[in-house]
Amino acid sequence: MSNSFGSSIKVSIFGESHGKGIGIVIDGIPPGTSLDMEEIKRQMARRAPGQKLGTPRKETDEVTILSGFYNGYTTGTPLCGIIENKNTRSGDYDRTARLLRPSHADYTAHVKYKGFEDYRGGGHFSGRITAPLTFAGAIFRQLLEKKGIIIASHIKQLHSITDRDFNDQDFSNPQTLGMLQDERLPVLTPGVGNQMEARIEEARMNLDSVGGIVETVFINLPPGLGDPFFESLESRLAQMIFSIPAVKGLSFGAGFDFPSMTGSQANDSFCLEGEDIKTRTNNNGGILGGISTGMPVVFKTVFKPTPSISKKQETVNMDSLTEESIEIHGRHDPCVILRAIPALEAAAAIAVFDAWKEWGYSG
Amino acid sequence: MSNSFGSSIKVSIFGESHGKGIGIVIDGIPPGTSLDMEEIKRQMARRAPGQKLGTPRKETDEVTILSGFYNGYTTGTPLCGIIENKNTRSGDYDRTARLLRPSHADYTAHVKYKGFEDYRGGGHFSGRITAPLTFAGAIFRQLLEKKGIIIASHIKQLHSITDRDFNDQDFSNPQTLGMLQDERLPVLTPGVGNQMEARIEEARMNLDSVGGIVETVFINLPPGLGDPFFESLESRLAQMIFSIPAVKGLSFGAGFDFPSMTGSQANDSFCLEGEDIKTRTNNNGGILGGISTGMPVVFKTVFKPTPSISKKQETVNMDSLTEESIEIHGRHDPCVILRAIPALEAAAAIAVFDAWKEWGYSG
Amino acid sequence: MSNSFGSSIKVSIFGESHGKGIGIVIDGIPPGTSLDMEEIKRQMARRAPGQKLGTPRKETDEVTILSGFYNGYTTGTPLCGIIENKNTRSGDYDRTARLLRPSHADYTAHVKYKGFEDYRGGGHFSGRITAPLTFAGAIFRQLLEKKGIIIASHIKQLHSITDRDFNDQDFSNPQTLGMLQDERLPVLTPGVGNQMEARIEEARMNLDSVGGIVETVFINLPPGLGDPFFESLESRLAQMIFSIPAVKGLSFGAGFDFPSMTGSQANDSFCLEGEDIKTRTNNNGGILGGISTGMPVVFKTVFKPTPSISKKQETVNMDSLTEESIEIHGRHDPCVILRAIPALEAAAAIAVFDAWKEWGYSG
Amino acid sequence: MSNSFGSSIKVSIFGESHGKGIGIVIDGIPPGTSLDMEEIKRQMARRAPGQKLGTPRKETDEVTILSGFYNGYTTGTPLCGIIENKNTRSGDYDRTARLLRPSHADYTAHVKYKGFEDYRGGGHFSGRITAPLTFAGAIFRQLLEKKGIIIASHIKQLHSITDRDFNDQDFSNPQTLGMLQDERLPVLTPGVGNQMEARIEEARMNLDSVGGIVETVFINLPPGLGDPFFESLESRLAQMIFSIPAVKGLSFGAGFDFPSMTGSQANDSFCLEGEDIKTRTNNNGGILGGISTGMPVVFKTVFKPTPSISKKQETVNMDSLTEESIEIHGRHDPCVILRAIPALEAAAAIAVFDAWKEWGYSG
Repeated sequence: MSNSFGSSIKVSIFGESHGKGIGIVIDGIPPGTSLDMEEIKRQMARRAPGQKLGTPRKETDEVTILSGFYNGYTTGTPLCGIIENKNTRSGDYDRTARLLRPSHADYTAHVKYKGFEDYRGGGHFSGRITAPLTFAGAIFRQLLEKKGIIIASHIKQLHSITDRDFNDQDFSNPQTLGMLQDERLPVLTPGVGNQMEARIEEARMNLDSVGGIVETVFINLPPGLGDPFFESLESRLAQMIFSIPAVKGLSFGAGFDFPSMTGSQANDSFCLEGEDIKTRTNNNGGILGGISTGMPVVFKTVFKPTPSISKKQETVNMDSLTEESIEIHGRHDPCVILRAIPALEAAAAIAVFDAWKEWGYSG
Repeated sequence: MSNSFGSSIKVSIFGESHGKGIGIVIDGIPPGTSLDMEEIKRQMARRAPGQKLGTPRKETDEVTILSGFYNGYTTGTPLCGIIENKNTRSGDYDRTARLLRPSHADYTAHVKYKGFEDYRGGGHFSGRITAPLTFAGAIFRQLLEKKGIIIASHIKQLHSITDRDFNDQDFSNPQTLGMLQDERLPVLTPGVGNQMEARIEEARMNLDSVGGIVETVFINLPPGLGDPFFESLESRLAQMIFSIPAVKGLSFGAGFDFPSMTGSQANDSFCLEGEDIKTRTNNNGGILGGISTGMPVVFKTVFKPTPSISKKQETVNMDSLTEESIEIHGRHDPCVILRAIPALEAAAAIAVFDAWKEWGYSG
Repeated sequence: MSNSFGSSIKVSIFGESHGKGIGIVIDGIPPGTSLDMEEIKRQMARRAPGQKLGTPRKETDEVTILSGFYNGYTTGTPLCGIIENKNTRSGDYDRTARLLRPSHADYTAHVKYKGFEDYRGGGHFSGRITAPLTFAGAIFRQLLEKKGIIIASHIKQLHSITDRDFNDQDFSNPQTLGMLQDERLPVLTPGVGNQMEARIEEARMNLDSVGGIVETVFINLPPGLGDPFFESLESRLAQMIFSIPAVKGLSFGAGFDFPSMTGSQANDSFCLEGEDIKTRTNNNGGILGGISTGMPVVFKTVFKPTPSISKKQETVNMDSLTEESIEIHGRHDPCVILRAIPALEAAAAIAVFDAWKEWGYSG
Repeated sequence: MSNSFGSSIKVSIFGESHGKGIGIVIDGIPPGTSLDMEEIKRQMARRAPGQKLGTPRKETDEVTILSGFYNGYTTGTPLCGIIENKNTRSGDYDRTARLLRPSHADYTAHVKYKGFEDYRGGGHFSGRITAPLTFAGAIFRQLLEKKGIIIASHIKQLHSITDRDFNDQDFSNPQTLGMLQDERLPVLTPGVGNQMEARIEEARMNLDSVGGIVETVFINLPPGLGDPFFESLESRLAQMIFSIPAVKGLSFGAGFDFPSMTGSQANDSFCLEGEDIKTRTNNNGGILGGISTGMPVVFKTVFKPTPSISKKQETVNMDSLTEESIEIHGRHDPCVILRAIPALEAAAAIAVFDAWKEWGYSG
């Protein structure tokens, strides 16, 4: 089952791509939190379709807050935000309803829900369902930012084009870091963005798609967030991030580079900065024993290439149980990453705030 | 907090490395399950220290079942298994109690528990606490095996030495696959094991350590396990696997290789095998939309190098708040992977059974 | 916190009496469940205001289903139902906003939410929030009824007027039992309803209110529902039922009459009905060891008198911190029980279905 | 399932009456809590058998703490306490193993666990399993007492003998209140205890048993504990208290007396005590809208008569499926209440602390 996440807060998500509406119920927001609605809209817009390089669909992901918000402040009771589905062209999808789209959830949804799933546009499995998640994340992001936390991401890899990793200098320059979220293609190395853009266009021309790796950082988190075992900060972030459609890998700090190191290379020596205990390096990505160290929390997330491609593919027709071929037309992103970054950051902000509130966050 | 995991089953873990005992409470095992005690002991022995290449400590990780088991069958009520801590030489650790061991949880435990943590031998953060997890996993593993599920792992990478990935032929040969768990250094490519062994010995000689990547597979799982969003099969496995000390990365199927593929290369075409719907390739690692497809569930787990090394390291003394150097003596594995594999498989078996029971597992 | 209930299903409730809307997210409804919309409306109407004896407000508690429902069937994904708040006359309440209404949640809401609560019409604490609960219950009630379960209630006591208890004959006559829900004042003894009606009118004339006791039964439940300890069938029902505003007591079977019995009088002897094991009496109200016995599940729920009365009362003004008097005008029921019965039955249906699904309910 | 309780703390209970051991895992105790072991033993002794009026069995309910406790303080990690089962005379029970004991869980356990239950001495359903609950409660009770909270209970009714209700004067005299827990038969009215004692002896002579009502109070709780709906303070206490074997009813404040009152009689007027907001009466038992008001939290719990009686009773033999008669010999309390009071107070202390920790309890 669970459509719910959280220990000290609880988010409950619902909706199908082409149903009446999608939304989220958020419980546990501290009462008296003022919300910057413009900033929430900006986060929603980062994820919304209709941007250059993305899909040409025009959706206005306008959130209506039904509850838990009064006179400009959260009330402390559950806040429900809903988004009406307006621009739904189910016709695009009906043609292929019985043809399983490769690498989509059509088949597993069919098995799980015994044929009763709302398959239109991917239904409950659509990337569109990350819109309410982005809304919830935008709220918690504001709470984190009030405490000086900065969340930033860059595209570490887009198909064959790679960017460098975050380094200490990036973290000591919060302003530059903060500007990454205004970029359509956030990268650290000048020029790399243009190459990535070209690579996406090439994929589109080829009726194909590409994926990549996003590197994300939280700076200024205090030490103490998370727990040993099943609610380790890694476990919480992982549970949340693997919820996002198309995510297939996640690593913290040096991650998949750890195996090439020895212990003496990998270990992060402790040192003092005034009276504060820090580490000289941060291969552990700001987490030891499942608990934040106070160093930047850094992780990489793998997104597979967008499964919807216009190229002809082999598949199975569920009605006739015959093998057929499929060409997926409609409005699709040749690279899911651009719109996924705000959803990823939002998802991570939810998980981090949940750990922090349990650890004693106070407004 | 949570020391508990699970939706349709619940495991609750407890214990410190040098306290009186460690253990686990397991709720939700179907009543009337007979347990092969020899097989449970075998799984515990795989994880136990004292094997060649591992630490020379002699521990007998003997589990006493206190409840939930009667006349050779589980009763359906909570089963508690405990392991006494016998061979504890806290003296080894007291010397360094106030020196933070780099890349260990000493510092974060100290922050989290405000100085009241039982720091001896890593306390609650010790790898030793995976023993009860291995015990619980051994029970669920038996339940899975009764349904024909095979769980197998090989060392994909150990420092600079790499093995090939699992391929279809491996999966069609369950017997060979099953034999992997009897190997001290399970690999797919002949000769690679010896190289890895040499590499571990080299690390030991250098007072250093190494890490690596383990690739694990579940074959014969039915389609339908898992859910969209927060209890996706990936989310459940990730939450559980990131609980294991030293794990810093996890990917499913093609994982970190996805970014180099285009959609047309990455997508798994559907095909028919008789009346069964299968995919020709399995880049998605047997999971689509968070739900098992019926194809092998394949994932890679990154372990960082063992943090305990005898080489001199820089660190901080928490009492004096001065920078000092530390040499960690005592009994430590130069490569944590060998003993971690059974814990990893056990952890994964718990997560998979939990999803299956919710999806209607019947004995 | 938690606005969520359930183990094998999950309901998450939200909303304030005078906000934009109220609603509920329901996860875990089996896919392919057809819903009788007329019957759902009928259950909603039982709870809705505007009936004789109740408040004269006219609300149309029309539920819009946003998700989880497609082509006449549930999809298996979260179903969200919302109700817009239309007929809100906040003016009625603003006058008394700073005067704490006795026996209402004004004061505790103020403490809990630090002054940010939406106090209009009781906000999140309003009896109106039971409307979405009634909606969810109406769905699960249908699932139970498909299995032959009958849920019925009568007013056991309304102020000084009492009805007799349910007896075996009532249970062997499902049709008569089923008709209770069509009664405005459901009672077992002819004539008692009229007396109760008169008693309510008397309270209204006196600008006062009355409470009472409702006795509810579930017949035809199979044995096996519930668990020992924290998810006993009593614990589940109690957690849920004490969620309903104004409930202050709950007992099962003989309940508060147990103390006057000896063990030999109270014990329910086992007997055989064909091959079925039954009990001759049912003092335990169909539950032993927290698990249903297969006998009717019977319980009594105490509702305190409606706290909103027009009589002058002493109270405190939160702004001036002075003692003042209050007269509550507006639209209020002189007896909350009539409208509470459908909410109570709905709440209980949710708890019972949750236990049954865990125990293997299949459609 | 669930053997676990709690939101901000988590207790997980296990064990069977005649298995190797019983126990509890407690997660979420604040680190650095010193425990008064003598006081814990005293609470355990209150519940232990072997007291006059109770069963003559001699058990030493000695708790061994396996984890989470070091150098006299809790560590903040899960604390597991176990109790070995020593004095088990299963022979007493085997004779009647296939005869269902009326009003016990034999039948429902058999259905639930499909015949694999450990039936000896009631197995997991035995009152003995409240010993670990009492242990956990003793820990949380100490935490509450450090904040000035007093928990006290008296026997309101034992069969036909009744005591008066708690009144304001009792609450203003904490010392007298505190002494109630030292009484074998705690009552408020002199002489009533002797009558109750005689009534219990009479039941024993008649090979019969009696039940009753216990009234419990928490004084000095701050306002703000609990939540609306499913985690209302009433819901939390009810979920926990209905876990205790033999509990069949629970009411708060005026409880089952509410129906005889009108609103103007039942409502608790607000007033000022200095700057503190209080209520003149406390019919709501210290809880409004599911949240504590700061007034004493008062509730009544109904215990049915001990089901184990030596009188001949009618029942069913599960093997032969024939109706037979049963005489239950062995060691049984003719009145369960005396030993149940400490378990009841412990259970309530767990629920109250859980709500308080969520609401910001700090040591």
